[in-house]
Amino acid sequence: MPTDTKSRILDAALALFNERGTANVTTNHIAEALSMSPGNLYYHYRNKAEIVRELFARIAGEWAVNYAVPPATMPSIPMMEAMVAGNFEIQARYRFFFRDLTLLLNADPELAAAYRANRAGGIGNTRFLINLFVDAGVLTPIGDDAALDDLVQLLWLVGDFWLVFKDTGGAEFSQADMDQGVRLFRRLLTPHLKGNSP
Amino acid sequence: MPTDTKSRILDAALALFNERGTANVTTNHIAEALSMSPGNLYYHYRNKAEIVRELFARIAGEWAVNYAVPPATMPSIPMMEAMVAGNFEIQARYRFFFRDLTLLLNADPELAAAYRANRAGGIGNTRFLINLFVDAGVLTPIGDDAALDDLVQLLWLVGDFWLVFKDTGGAEFSQADMDQGVRLFRRLLTPHLKGNSP
Repeated sequence: MPTDTKSRILDAALALFNERGTANVTTNHIAEALSMSPGNLYYHYRNKAEIVRELFARIAGEWAVNYAVPPATMPSIPMMEAMVAGNFEIQARYRFFFRDLTLLLNADPELAAAYRANRAGGIGNTRFLINLFVDAGVLTPIGDDAALDDLVQLLWLVGDFWLVFKDTGGAEFSQADMDQGVRLFRRLLTPHLKGNSP
Repeated sequence: MPTDTKSRILDAALALFNERGTANVTTNHIAEALSMSPGNLYYHYRNKAEIVRELFARIAGEWAVNYAVPPATMPSIPMMEAMVAGNFEIQARYRFFFRDLTLLLNADPELAAAYRANRAGGIGNTRFLINLFVDAGVLTPIGDDAALDDLVQLLWLVGDFWLVFKDTGGAEFSQADMDQGVRLFRRLLTPHLKGNSP
């Protein structure tokens, strides 16, 4: 557990953002939660946008670890499901970011650029993974380019927005929602599972 | 084209919300755009939340028309695709609402209740429509309750968040994105199309 001041600020900001929404939290609220003077916080982070960018860097770092395929690993459906479950756990911990996504991206072009570069990379990796699964004989060939693109987009839509979708439905999302998200991934792949008929 | 004052206010608010995001538009901005005094606007709508609720009532009204099945109609895939395309057109016209959804629902419990009642009804209707398609022999039986629920949730996720997903990807969404959204619906149903093998 890192306890340096920058990390403590990020941890406190994350808790407040998740609880109240980013729009309702100021840097003064964050300083107050840490019993820190606004000037001291300002010494570490000049504004809220900088804090949000640092939190997104954390998310991106956790994603990178979550989606790394260990060397000499045979691709398998359980491996993919573990990645999807890991993604939902990350999103649950940083839920403010996904809830307030449109707002945050509109407010900060630098964050928007980082998020979009990350998504473009992730979509490329998903495409790569699907092809790896096909090559390994786990999945049957997906079809033409449009079919592959549609599948990858659907997987990303579930990955990025499933928890927000449940969230906007009214109840704080639960472990059951996260489990259903993993099942949705599997449903999307089911028609392409080797030896499967719908 | 209605030209009464309440409608003019809603039209002006919609244009500004779509252009700048709801968080960046005040009732004074709306009055200004109409060369109207803030007092006159206030006479019709007491605050921004009331305007947003009225705009959501418009959306709900357009959805009701869009999803109505004419009497004695044989359910068909083209009929469903027309409904999906209609939904995306409605979302494109009221894009602020879907972009700012989390923010708007958190800010106004009355709006949240209306939105959630609408979604619950829509999910029920989708389930009903899918069963109608199965009965009409357009689709093969979907499977157990969990399979049907997963399919309905995926269809709603695409319906509610596909355009926002494209939007957060960086480019203003286009007709091509809306067409891809319709195609995604069809992809979700493809494994269940009668006589189809994946």
